[in-house]
Amino acid sequence: MDINKIRLDFPFFAQNSTKKPQIYLDTACQSLRPQVVLDAMNRYYQLEPACGGRSMHHLSAAVSKQVDETRMAAARFFHASRKEEIIFTRNTTEGINIVANSLGLAAGDTVVISGKEHNSNLIPWQMLVRRAGINLKIIPPLPDGTFNIQEFEQFIASGVKLVSLGMTSNLDGVTIPAAEVVKAAHRAGALVLLDAAQAAPHRPIDVRSLDVDFLALSGHKMLGPSGTGILYGKYALLEKLSPFLVGGDTVATSTYDSCEFLPPPEKFEAGLQDYAGIYGLKAAFEYIQKVGFDFIQKQETSLNEFITGEISSLPGLTILGPADPKLRGGIINFTIEGIDSHRIALMLDQMAGVMVRSGQHCVHSWFNDRQIKGSVRASTYFYNTLEEAAVFVENLKKIRKVL
Amino acid sequence: MDINKIRLDFPFFAQNSTKKPQIYLDTACQSLRPQVVLDAMNRYYQLEPACGGRSMHHLSAAVSKQVDETRMAAARFFHASRKEEIIFTRNTTEGINIVANSLGLAAGDTVVISGKEHNSNLIPWQMLVRRAGINLKIIPPLPDGTFNIQEFEQFIASGVKLVSLGMTSNLDGVTIPAAEVVKAAHRAGALVLLDAAQAAPHRPIDVRSLDVDFLALSGHKMLGPSGTGILYGKYALLEKLSPFLVGGDTVATSTYDSCEFLPPPEKFEAGLQDYAGIYGLKAAFEYIQKVGFDFIQKQETSLNEFITGEISSLPGLTILGPADPKLRGGIINFTIEGIDSHRIALMLDQMAGVMVRSGQHCVHSWFNDRQIKGSVRASTYFYNTLEEAAVFVENLKKIRKVL
Repeated sequence: MDINKIRLDFPFFAQNSTKKPQIYLDTACQSLRPQVVLDAMNRYYQLEPACGGRSMHHLSAAVSKQVDETRMAAARFFHASRKEEIIFTRNTTEGINIVANSLGLAAGDTVVISGKEHNSNLIPWQMLVRRAGINLKIIPPLPDGTFNIQEFEQFIASGVKLVSLGMTSNLDGVTIPAAEVVKAAHRAGALVLLDAAQAAPHRPIDVRSLDVDFLALSGHKMLGPSGTGILYGKYALLEKLSPFLVGGDTVATSTYDSCEFLPPPEKFEAGLQDYAGIYGLKAAFEYIQKVGFDFIQKQETSLNEFITGEISSLPGLTILGPADPKLRGGIINFTIEGIDSHRIALMLDQMAGVMVRSGQHCVHSWFNDRQIKGSVRASTYFYNTLEEAAVFVENLKKIRKVL
Repeated sequence: MDINKIRLDFPFFAQNSTKKPQIYLDTACQSLRPQVVLDAMNRYYQLEPACGGRSMHHLSAAVSKQVDETRMAAARFFHASRKEEIIFTRNTTEGINIVANSLGLAAGDTVVISGKEHNSNLIPWQMLVRRAGINLKIIPPLPDGTFNIQEFEQFIASGVKLVSLGMTSNLDGVTIPAAEVVKAAHRAGALVLLDAAQAAPHRPIDVRSLDVDFLALSGHKMLGPSGTGILYGKYALLEKLSPFLVGGDTVATSTYDSCEFLPPPEKFEAGLQDYAGIYGLKAAFEYIQKVGFDFIQKQETSLNEFITGEISSLPGLTILGPADPKLRGGIINFTIEGIDSHRIALMLDQMAGVMVRSGQHCVHSWFNDRQIKGSVRASTYFYNTLEEAAVFVENLKKIRKVL
């Protein structure tokens, strides 16, 4: 794999060569897209701009076929048992909301999360505490940010309905021991939902060997179109779940006072879907498979090792999470004592077009608990170069000197 | 306005010229898109493929600005009082689900719909009958398909929480007297939600002069990207509604046991949005405004008058809805006695590439109530020509002869 050849596939970099430098280190929010993903979407709009499923004509048949093929591609990508276990969503958040609102959780049921969850895996459960009277148990991370599997295993033994955990943290890039978590949860009779928004783009996930019950992820963080996502669920569970968003395409038939829901996945896909997005998603999966997770992880690790080595001794700088960059994937998130994170981010952008994220990264609960105002997060992907990382480091050092 | 010049704007027609004929009469399901909409989406992916709102860097600022501009464009298009009354959704169905699940409807509350609603404006209320014990009152249409305003006004006087009506029917193209409906509902203290999926692409809608409380519509039926929609709500009502889908970007801050929701529209827009879709939506609104609703309605009426004149006397053929084509917008929906609707649709497609929809059009309740198996729906838009309509008519006549 040649990184320079890879970069030619991304129109963003081509555009970049003609203007002021732009160094994109915000992939944890949203990834760049290769041209093949745009081509797939444009093919939909130019050649087959119709509805899938509903109509009998040849364009509709072509769209239905492509939707089916993307579903199969997603099933293969994540090793699902069958394509009907793949539900198309808008984003990870929607996937988590579907599970939260369809499981029929009731007063007294306990849901377990960690102390490092994104708002999207915290607020849906807080709502159920208020609306349905469930208990929400939060397992704090260990001091270095890693998952406290001991406390988790002890607690889970007491009887829990659902464990819902971020597989890889958007805060510090730490990945939980998902297989152990699932085993412990199943022993205790609990179901497991993994928020794989930050995991799926960066590591192979095999839902069958993990034996995970639900997995939610976003397409736009893994080269896919904006506003796309997938919720995986074991078919037998999806069958039992009550639908959440309902309407056209979720039912086989209706009368004025009744309706008959379609089997999964249709009963969860209400109204016209984002067909163009679904076309693009298949191209994204294929592109990632072509690059391969070995290359992706190698590239991220070398970037993280370089950046960590260069910045960790800067005065007042603290990297969130474990010291070992290998445990933090593509994420380098840090604070500099006494300097506002937004100020650092703005200066990096103004000085060198380096784009990072600052603030509380939708994990306000973790920051508020520690009374930390915010942090600066650089997040990389396989298309970032060591040269880009060097520009980031160099400018951060300059900023550290002047502030 | 020159229809041939308009057609040059749509890549689908250019592609069409090189292959076998394709006559697209399925716009009620999904419209074709002009190149400007594709260009806007590609601009996002090529130049600004980042998240809006969350990050401080220049790309994120550019995305946030564009999201804001689309929101303003939508507010102007529908004459909303302020841009914060515009919520981005995936489709009309989601908009209706948001209202249904956020109003806090409870046992004994009555919701009124008509007997001609799309599943998307029927199933969400049936779910509330089962889950929350609300009453669902269905006002049957008059024999010609028009709205029974007398029965509605009588019933509504008895005290109702919400009236939820399709503004224009996807079944027969009939538009309800929305202003009268809203007035009567408000007199009786009821709120009004209009499903404008089939209305917004075809007629100007002024939410302020209608005084409607909520309005849901789809972008993909009005030249916009697939998987886009808008829910309009009066700001004071949106403020009171509880959020439905929750997570990242819906809250200002969170702690482990509490959160503080953002004001509308953010509290309803959970997770990363379909930014490319939002870029495209603005281009769609601008294109429609350039064409103008006068031209759109003139073109649809002349197509509907021509088709109606040609086919209404075919043996065994019954057009759904009123006899006057002016009352049916762009929709010609019919049955032919003794012939399966799907068979007609398939033959039209095979013989001449004419694409229509067949079956029960997601209004199963209406068909089942009348024991009608299905119908054939041709739906037009301003980009369809009389020549296309003539091919449809000619082939339908051939089919009528041979079957």
